[in-house]
Amino acid sequence: MLTGEQIQLFEQDGYILLPEVFDEAELDKLRGELPEVFGEAGPHRVVEAESGVVRGVHGVHETNPVFGALVRLPRLVEPARRLLGDDVYVHQFKINAKLALVGEVWEWHQDYRFWRDEDGMPSPRALSAAIFLDRVDEFNGPLMVVPGSHEDGVHETTVRDDAGWAETLAAKLKYSLNVEALAHATSGRGIVAPKGEAGSVLLFHSNLLHGSTPNMSPSNRTIALVSYNSVENRLNEVPDPRPEFIASRKFVPLMTIDDEALVANGSPVSA
Amino acid sequence: MLTGEQIQLFEQDGYILLPEVFDEAELDKLRGELPEVFGEAGPHRVVEAESGVVRGVHGVHETNPVFGALVRLPRLVEPARRLLGDDVYVHQFKINAKLALVGEVWEWHQDYRFWRDEDGMPSPRALSAAIFLDRVDEFNGPLMVVPGSHEDGVHETTVRDDAGWAETLAAKLKYSLNVEALAHATSGRGIVAPKGEAGSVLLFHSNLLHGSTPNMSPSNRTIALVSYNSVENRLNEVPDPRPEFIASRKFVPLMTIDDEALVANGSPVSA
Repeated sequence: MLTGEQIQLFEQDGYILLPEVFDEAELDKLRGELPEVFGEAGPHRVVEAESGVVRGVHGVHETNPVFGALVRLPRLVEPARRLLGDDVYVHQFKINAKLALVGEVWEWHQDYRFWRDEDGMPSPRALSAAIFLDRVDEFNGPLMVVPGSHEDGVHETTVRDDAGWAETLAAKLKYSLNVEALAHATSGRGIVAPKGEAGSVLLFHSNLLHGSTPNMSPSNRTIALVSYNSVENRLNEVPDPRPEFIASRKFVPLMTIDDEALVANGSPVSA
Repeated sequence: MLTGEQIQLFEQDGYILLPEVFDEAELDKLRGELPEVFGEAGPHRVVEAESGVVRGVHGVHETNPVFGALVRLPRLVEPARRLLGDDVYVHQFKINAKLALVGEVWEWHQDYRFWRDEDGMPSPRALSAAIFLDRVDEFNGPLMVVPGSHEDGVHETTVRDDAGWAETLAAKLKYSLNVEALAHATSGRGIVAPKGEAGSVLLFHSNLLHGSTPNMSPSNRTIALVSYNSVENRLNEVPDPRPEFIASRKFVPLMTIDDEALVANGSPVSA
């Protein structure tokens, strides 16, 4: 459970970094699934424009039992419920590979802009938990955020009109900030890159401005991202919805499982 | 003049960061020339692959009197002479624009690899002075270096065989390190990104591994790079030399000018 101070920090800055949320055995379990989930081809898998290696995979919590267990752990679900003030479900789940030297840039963006305009999400009453499967440092493409930018509402962006849903996942995003908007948003706030050991979790608001550089290090920087939405904030119908593996329409309150489930009995938990 | 300790640091780490080498009036003078030198089209000007805006300009110390004066200032030339133990000349001069949000990556490389294989430079008895025309911070694409990597000699790299001289200047370099070579080079050394206020100067060895991320900030990160070569290390003949504005063949010892010359009388100094 979050402390009052942590809740206040999240509300003020739009994010909070929690160290040591997962231990080494749990991280081993999670990382042990990566070769399989990165290896499976399909529209849910996105590759880097330059190298063709995997950039990320989407929705694998529905097919992989270990990641299925991950999104249901009380240590993630309870803070999400507390911060959103409601029962939650998983709107989106992805694993960003950001592999050594080939992981490319993520332009500055707000998740909610995509969720509103592409998925019909009524309000930004949603957040993401970024689980650091590797150590995140200055050189391997840390997430950069603009503290407090979640309070501005939805920023004006450059829009790539020719973009389909695939461009909502690629290095050149459909909606990204131009330099004037970024200058305005960072004025008096600056930029912060929360860093930490593997096992840390970054909770961030759906309207928080964020982006990241390429990975310049010889080490991977893989993170799992669980986006929780309030059950009351269920998606409206939209004409041309993104696939279920990107924007879920199962608006059912998530049932938590045992917090020891990831490593219990050494076997994956049924999702 | 460098102190004994500074010389030792340079020899050990392959670089040294000197703060407050240029004052605000001098920086204003230098930055005041940028619109003109960035604006002039020609083969010496390289643009970013993605945006088409200027990435850098080469050899403008031969045409612009302010940058012509810059490369001849005793505060740059004397340290170069001292560290190389010889008279020096300007092998290469460039201004890297690295503009806000559009400045792209520089892959990991060693300058000497290019100077040896493209220009016929016999030994790595050369160095560069990076003059920070803007503040360099964590978010605007700082130069990253591997301390001590200048001692390894020339690293094995990926070579783009189809590359002409233009690809020795672009985001996808002709010679760049692969992940195994980078892991080997950084082992026990790590990576450092020297940061500092505008007016700082980073001196670095021609064999030092370096690279940089895109500029994720709303501020430009423009640096001027003067590469000094020892006069005794003059280039050999090569079959297909790069243009003079990238690899000079005027092996004449550089004459210094007055250290006040940049702002003296408020007028540019004849180059």
